[in-house]
Amino acid sequence: MSVSFDTICAISTPPGIGGIAVIRLSGPDSWRIASEISGLRSQVSGLLPNSVHFSPLHDDGELVDEALLTFFRAPKSYTGEDVVEISCHGGGYAAKRVLHVVLKNGVRLARPGEFTERAFLNGKLDLAQAEAVADLIHARSESSGKIALRQLEGKLSALVHDMRAKVLDLLALLELELDFSEEDVEFQTRQSRLETLASLQEQIRCLSSTFSRGRFAREGLRVAIVGAPNAGKSTLLNRIVGDDRAIVSPEPGTTRDVVEAHIELGGIEVIFQDTAGLRETNHAIESQGILRTRRAIERSDLVVLLIDAATKTMPDTETLEIMQSREVITVFNKCDLAPVAENISGISAKTGEGVEELLQQISSWSHSEDITREEIVITEARHFNVLTRASDSLSRATAQITQSVLMASDLRDAANALGEITGETIGEEILDRIFSKFCIGK
Amino acid sequence: MSVSFDTICAISTPPGIGGIAVIRLSGPDSWRIASEISGLRSQVSGLLPNSVHFSPLHDDGELVDEALLTFFRAPKSYTGEDVVEISCHGGGYAAKRVLHVVLKNGVRLARPGEFTERAFLNGKLDLAQAEAVADLIHARSESSGKIALRQLEGKLSALVHDMRAKVLDLLALLELELDFSEEDVEFQTRQSRLETLASLQEQIRCLSSTFSRGRFAREGLRVAIVGAPNAGKSTLLNRIVGDDRAIVSPEPGTTRDVVEAHIELGGIEVIFQDTAGLRETNHAIESQGILRTRRAIERSDLVVLLIDAATKTMPDTETLEIMQSREVITVFNKCDLAPVAENISGISAKTGEGVEELLQQISSWSHSEDITREEIVITEARHFNVLTRASDSLSRATAQITQSVLMASDLRDAANALGEITGETIGEEILDRIFSKFCIGK
Repeated sequence: MSVSFDTICAISTPPGIGGIAVIRLSGPDSWRIASEISGLRSQVSGLLPNSVHFSPLHDDGELVDEALLTFFRAPKSYTGEDVVEISCHGGGYAAKRVLHVVLKNGVRLARPGEFTERAFLNGKLDLAQAEAVADLIHARSESSGKIALRQLEGKLSALVHDMRAKVLDLLALLELELDFSEEDVEFQTRQSRLETLASLQEQIRCLSSTFSRGRFAREGLRVAIVGAPNAGKSTLLNRIVGDDRAIVSPEPGTTRDVVEAHIELGGIEVIFQDTAGLRETNHAIESQGILRTRRAIERSDLVVLLIDAATKTMPDTETLEIMQSREVITVFNKCDLAPVAENISGISAKTGEGVEELLQQISSWSHSEDITREEIVITEARHFNVLTRASDSLSRATAQITQSVLMASDLRDAANALGEITGETIGEEILDRIFSKFCIGK
Repeated sequence: MSVSFDTICAISTPPGIGGIAVIRLSGPDSWRIASEISGLRSQVSGLLPNSVHFSPLHDDGELVDEALLTFFRAPKSYTGEDVVEISCHGGGYAAKRVLHVVLKNGVRLARPGEFTERAFLNGKLDLAQAEAVADLIHARSESSGKIALRQLEGKLSALVHDMRAKVLDLLALLELELDFSEEDVEFQTRQSRLETLASLQEQIRCLSSTFSRGRFAREGLRVAIVGAPNAGKSTLLNRIVGDDRAIVSPEPGTTRDVVEAHIELGGIEVIFQDTAGLRETNHAIESQGILRTRRAIERSDLVVLLIDAATKTMPDTETLEIMQSREVITVFNKCDLAPVAENISGISAKTGEGVEELLQQISSWSHSEDITREEIVITEARHFNVLTRASDSLSRATAQITQSVLMASDLRDAANALGEITGETIGEEILDRIFSKFCIGK
């Protein structure tokens, strides 16, 4: 693939206080412009690829920063183009000034994900690998990081590529038969064809089934803690967070907001939401509360329904209605004060009794163990949808086993669908949508 | 200076979402360890200084990330030691895993500022330049960035070094005279000595006088907006922020908190604080409010006292008492409803009338124009205190002009004080205090 692009730049390190910031340039003018704003102007013809140079950077004669410039020559760079990475003082001020000087010299600010998009278009990464870059950057737990790394290594791509090759093989033989249709040759028995289709379907089913777990790994598992006022929801949240486990970020709002706590449980991020304990009332603030509770429950993957073991008070009917569509783990709290029957999960948020078992229960529910063990997991809705489309096409192909022309068309659809995962077959619009979700600078 | 250190490492980019993270290693083992965790183990003897290599990184055979490794050889590195910078995927997960692997291989996590401290101890930077690195990273406005860059270039150091050289010259001649005291020689006239001392005092006075402005440049100018309830304080704050000027970060709290807004005004950061409008009451929440208002006023450099032009209601007496020690600009608000006399500053926060003039008035008060124009500005309390000590010593030296032995001792004190700015004379304890204020990774 030969594509010609303009030169782009962006700050590639996160904003905030830090020792180092990196401004990345990619495109045909990157070497020239980087050497023009630095003291390397006279040396540009002698600069070696993969070499680093310390130099002051100037803007109209005024010092902007002292920086390290690293030069990469196409195609041996992240994007496959000529690239310069300028490593300057961190903290924002210096990086913004350097970026400003680069922009003044006619370089365009990169769109989100544009560096990685170029890497894809220049054949440095396939699409699933490119998506893994974004996943790795956004990974907030061990499992999401590991899955992203495996995908970046190309493990998902290889599997999908292999499935697609099988579909294309089927298709090729079928098309050959169609070419020789007058002679009524058969290059493959109907039985063997059906077996291949069935085995492909099984492969897709296996891969698709990893999605529910994969999504937890990538986006975290959202657990809403629901209960009547004074059921002990906040105490439970504090108990969960206050333990020795890694706290990713507790985000307390005001008492009327939904309070969140992130912890890592069995390698996946679990986001607990403490919802407001609602009284049946028309008070305006409480109706704001019900809205937030509704949203928390609707966004959750799992609800922990907390009931005071002594009073057995249930949440208001509205909350119970919203919970209808969710999976629920019911737990009796304050079992240090009021004993519960043996077949009922009892905890004491106050003393901590049973809390570890509750977390274990949530962990098993999420199948988090499978996530880190499994070699290839899909985490993106896009991949899941594409696999479903491929599977549907294969089902139709199976049903049309006697109608070679129709079957060929279904096989083509299946191959095209699978090709969308690796990017072998994909439209510009979908590409734009994928890369626009990246951060700027990547 | 020859110092021998162990090998240290840290993540040098800010935390958060970004394309790139950089882990820095410095010390004698950095090359060996970086090549051991990467695929460059076999090549380590052939690696060139200032060269960049792409390589996967492994932890016990498991892929941790794919990264760029840049090798710097002492003394041509930031710290003056052997350095490796590992540029990996951003976003935290990959960087933390890479850091973990490096730490597992016997490298120690760097203390805050330890890389820059080593640069100082290895003679790559003097102390004022090292402090400028931290200032540049924390710079939040044009003026603070520019001042830090000038200081990093060594402009402050050169000036102070020059002053110190003059003191040492005086001292050398004086000591020579003392050596020849029995012969009663005079290498310098008393008059010439007094002139030198006076000119040094004037230089120090000039430099010290930049501190009030320099502090605004570095830390921002804090303006508390104070007034009775309904004077229009929040409206004014919103008007100031809502205009077209650059908003650094509006940080609204709840209504009972102090609300802050940061804007850049004439190149310096101005932090406006909207204090609670307090009613005379014993209500518990309002007494929390008075505490916060008190703190806002006490932390402020300037108070804008906002008075409703129609009601002319003044703030409560407690607030007025706290304001006593502050500089105050008094402004009448709502002048669209109630006209004010010509010699009184009238604004309408609602329509925006007069707000630009108020900002101008604040800008002139801060002398922000001088800050960006001035070549050398001091911004650190440490420098100001050291200059004051030097000046006191020179005053004593002047008073003891006839007492050569005492005068020599005072000159020595002055030279030592000045040397603390560049770090030519400084104790380990002070160094520790300075570098501990840095961020980790720098």
